[in-house]
Amino acid sequence: MNYKKLQQEDIAMFETLLEPARVLLDDETRNAYGHDETEDLVHPPEVVLKPINTAEVSAILKYCNTQCIPVTPIGGRTGLSGGALCVYGGVGLSMEKMNHLVEIDELNLQVTVQPAVITQVLQETVAAKGLYYPPDPSSRGSCSIGGNLAENAGGPRAVKYGVTKDFVLNLEVVMANGDVIKTGANTLKNSTGYNLTQLMVGSEGTLGVITQAVLKLVPLPKHNLLMLVPFYDAAKACEAVSAIFRAGIIPSALEFMERDAIDWVLRFVDDVHVPVEPSIQAHLLIEVDGNHVDALMADCEVISNVVQEYGCGEILFADDEAQKNQLWKLRRKVAEAVKSNSVYKEEDTVVPRYQLPMLLKGVKEIGARFGFQSVCYGHAGDGNLHINIIRGELTETQWNDELPVAIREIFKLCVQLGGTLSGEHGIGLVQRDYMDIAFGAAELSLMRQIKDVMDPHQILNPGKIIPDLNF
Amino acid sequence: MNYKKLQQEDIAMFETLLEPARVLLDDETRNAYGHDETEDLVHPPEVVLKPINTAEVSAILKYCNTQCIPVTPIGGRTGLSGGALCVYGGVGLSMEKMNHLVEIDELNLQVTVQPAVITQVLQETVAAKGLYYPPDPSSRGSCSIGGNLAENAGGPRAVKYGVTKDFVLNLEVVMANGDVIKTGANTLKNSTGYNLTQLMVGSEGTLGVITQAVLKLVPLPKHNLLMLVPFYDAAKACEAVSAIFRAGIIPSALEFMERDAIDWVLRFVDDVHVPVEPSIQAHLLIEVDGNHVDALMADCEVISNVVQEYGCGEILFADDEAQKNQLWKLRRKVAEAVKSNSVYKEEDTVVPRYQLPMLLKGVKEIGARFGFQSVCYGHAGDGNLHINIIRGELTETQWNDELPVAIREIFKLCVQLGGTLSGEHGIGLVQRDYMDIAFGAAELSLMRQIKDVMDPHQILNPGKIIPDLNF
Repeated sequence: MNYKKLQQEDIAMFETLLEPARVLLDDETRNAYGHDETEDLVHPPEVVLKPINTAEVSAILKYCNTQCIPVTPIGGRTGLSGGALCVYGGVGLSMEKMNHLVEIDELNLQVTVQPAVITQVLQETVAAKGLYYPPDPSSRGSCSIGGNLAENAGGPRAVKYGVTKDFVLNLEVVMANGDVIKTGANTLKNSTGYNLTQLMVGSEGTLGVITQAVLKLVPLPKHNLLMLVPFYDAAKACEAVSAIFRAGIIPSALEFMERDAIDWVLRFVDDVHVPVEPSIQAHLLIEVDGNHVDALMADCEVISNVVQEYGCGEILFADDEAQKNQLWKLRRKVAEAVKSNSVYKEEDTVVPRYQLPMLLKGVKEIGARFGFQSVCYGHAGDGNLHINIIRGELTETQWNDELPVAIREIFKLCVQLGGTLSGEHGIGLVQRDYMDIAFGAAELSLMRQIKDVMDPHQILNPGKIIPDLNF
Repeated sequence: MNYKKLQQEDIAMFETLLEPARVLLDDETRNAYGHDETEDLVHPPEVVLKPINTAEVSAILKYCNTQCIPVTPIGGRTGLSGGALCVYGGVGLSMEKMNHLVEIDELNLQVTVQPAVITQVLQETVAAKGLYYPPDPSSRGSCSIGGNLAENAGGPRAVKYGVTKDFVLNLEVVMANGDVIKTGANTLKNSTGYNLTQLMVGSEGTLGVITQAVLKLVPLPKHNLLMLVPFYDAAKACEAVSAIFRAGIIPSALEFMERDAIDWVLRFVDDVHVPVEPSIQAHLLIEVDGNHVDALMADCEVISNVVQEYGCGEILFADDEAQKNQLWKLRRKVAEAVKSNSVYKEEDTVVPRYQLPMLLKGVKEIGARFGFQSVCYGHAGDGNLHINIIRGELTETQWNDELPVAIREIFKLCVQLGGTLSGEHGIGLVQRDYMDIAFGAAELSLMRQIKDVMDPHQILNPGKIIPDLNF
C-alpha cells in the first residue's frame, strides 16, 4: 500500500475533529505510544489521537479512509505480539479517554463498557455486586477490555470459564469507512445471521475499532481453594494436567511453571517465600472454585490423589487470602522476572492439553540445537504454554537470523500436535510471518478477502496478522 | 441469480462423481428431502446426492460452482427455520452417509465427528466413557451434529454449558469452489487469525459445507436434581428466573412452560401424569448438576426459597430417573403436541432473561390484537422463548397476510428489549425477511459481502438468512 505521510492539512483536520489538546505530535508522546510489552520494539505513530466518543472515532476513520492514512488502535499497551505498534506510522488511535463503565445490569448479569476500562477495574467493580468477569490476563491491572477483545485474551481462569470471546454478547464497532455497527444482540443465545461479534473478537483492530462492548457476567463463586504442587519431573507434571480432568474435575485454574520460572520469579520478588527442594523440576498451581467449601475440599482430595500418581512432592495448600495472593503473584510475575534479566521473545504456543509434555520436550530439544535457553510456563489446563526465549549471550546473527528458524520449528511442532501459534496473545506483528504454518493458502486467502471487505483501503492496523497483504 | 436447471449432462456428471445409487431423482425421494420440520413447507431439490466423503463433497461443489447449480446441504431435516429447504431446486446434498464418529480422544476430552452423527448418539457414546457433550436440542434423537453446527443449536443445557458454538474447536469445511479448509486448531484457546470457525457455525450452509468437526467434551457430572415448579402467575415465573441467578446459582437447565403448553402436552402423551391445579398459569422446570449431591441439595434449597417469593405452588422433586425422564418428556414434546393439533408457526425469540415477562406480555397483547392464539415455552434461563402461533381457525388472509405484520411486531419488541430474532433455530427461509429488524443496512451489507467472498456464485443454500441477495 502507498500510505499518505501526514501533512499539515491532515493535522489541521484532526484538530477540527477533536479538541487540539487531544491531537499530540511531540516526540515524547509519539515514542510512548510507539511500544507495547513486545520485546524491545518501538514503532511510533506520526500523531496520537485521543477520541472521547464513538462519533469522534467515526469521523477520524472516515477521514483517514479517504486519505489512505493508517490507523492503529492503541489500548493499554500491554500486548505481547506487537498488535498496537504503528508499523506504518500514521495515526495512533489511543482509546484511553473512552474508559467509562457504562452500565452494570444486575438483573441480566451483563455489563456495558467502553474499551479503555481496565480489566481489573471491571472485575473489582462487578465483584462488589457479587458478580464475576472471569477473563484475567496477567496484565489485568493495566490492560483494557478493548485490548482483551482485540487479542481474545485469556488468563488462568479460561480453563473453567473460557476466554474473552466467551463473554462477549454484543459489540459496537466503527468500520474503516466510519460506519457504526452493532455486531449482535444483548442475549446469551443468538442464531441470527453471521457471527460478526466473533469475527471482530481477536481481529486485533484490523477489521474495525471496538467502541463499546456488552459482556456477560456470572455469579461470583463464594469460595476457592488454591494448591501448589511440586513435581520431580516436568513431563509428569504436564501428564497430571490431563489426568485431573479425566478424574472429573474442572479446576478454575491449572497453571504450569517449570523450575526456571519459579527460580527467576523468586529472585525477582521480595515478598514471596516458597521452599523449593533442589530436585523439583516443575510446579502446578491448581485452583478450584464454587459455592460449597465441602465440595471443593472433596475436589482437592481427588486432585491430590491424582497428582501423587505423577511423582509430586509435598503439596502446599494456601491457608488464607494473603498466601493465595502470594502464590498468584509467583505465577503472574514470571514474564516480568524474565524481562528484568534479559531481552526475550515470548511465544504463546497452544496444543491439546495431553500433548503438553511432547511440546515441552520438543521446545527443549530445539533450544539445545539452536543454543538458546527458554523459560516455559503457562495455562496448562488449556494446553497453552508460554515459551520465553532468553536473548542472554546470543549473537546478533543467532538472535536475528537463526532464532526465526528455531521458532518456525517450534510452531511446526505445535501444529503437528494439533495446536496452533497463539492461544491468547494474538498474532500481531511478531507471529505474522509464521501464519503459513497454521493455515494453508485457501484459509489465508479467505482471511485476506474478509479484510478487504471490512477495510478495502487497508487503513486499519496494517502489517498485522495476515502475511503479504499487498505490502 | 440465474440458476441452471439440471440437465441430463449434469446428472451424468453426478453419476461419475458418485456411485449412481447415491444420485436420486425419483419424486418420492425428492419430496422426502424437500421438507424439514418447518410448518408444512415443501421445496424439493431436483436431485438428491449422498456423498460418502469430503472428496465427493468437494467434487460436487466444484462442479456446481462452475455450472451455477444451487446446492443445499441437508442434515436430519429437523430444522424449524426452513434452513434445509431447496427453495431454488438444484442439488439436495444429503450428508447422511457421512455419519462416522471418527475418534473419541479421552486424553484431551475431544471428539472428532462427521456431520451426520446423530446428536443423541454422540451424547450416549461419550457418556459411556464418563464424558459429556451438553448441547441437546429437543430433536436430539434425530438431528445431526452438522445441522446443529449449521443452525448453532442450543437446548436446555445451554444455560450452564453454552450452545453448539461453544463446543466447536475446529471444522473441516468444503468451500463453494471445492477448496477444503480447516477453520482453526484442536485447541481450547486460539488467537490465531480471524475466527473462521465461528463464522461457519450458524451460517446455515450458506458459506460452506461442514464435513468434519472437532468438538470439546467436558467430564460428565455425576449427579443431577430436577424440580418442577408451578406458578400462579406466568410473569412471576419469568421474574423468578432472573432471581435464581442473582442468588448465585447457575442451573444446568431452566425451562419455562406456560399453562397451555403443559395442557397440550399432557393430552398428547399417555404416560406422563402431573397434577396441575386449575389456578396454575406456568411452570419452571429446573435442573442442577454436579459431582456432589449435598451441594446440589443445598442449591435446590436456595432455589426453593427464591421461587417461593414469586408465588409458586407445591414443588415437585423428581424422585428417580424414571420421573426425571417423564418431566423432560413433558418439556421436549411441547412442539410435537402443538403440531399434532394444528398447523403452526414457531418463532424462536430471545431477549435478556429479565426482559422475558415483558416479552411474554407483549406477545399476548399482539396475539389479542391480531386474533391468534399462541403457546409459549422455552429456555427461560437464556431468555429464549419459543412462540408457537396456532393456525386454528385463522383465515387464509389472516394467516398469510396479517400474521407477518404481527410477527414483525413481535420481533420489533424483541429488539427493543435488547434481544433478537433467533436464539437457536437460525434464520433460514422463514425469518429471512425480518432480518432488517435486527440489523441495519451496514451490518446486512457486511454479511452480504462476506457471503460474496465465500460463495461468489451464490450456489450455497440460496434464499437463506440474508434478504434481497440479488434474487
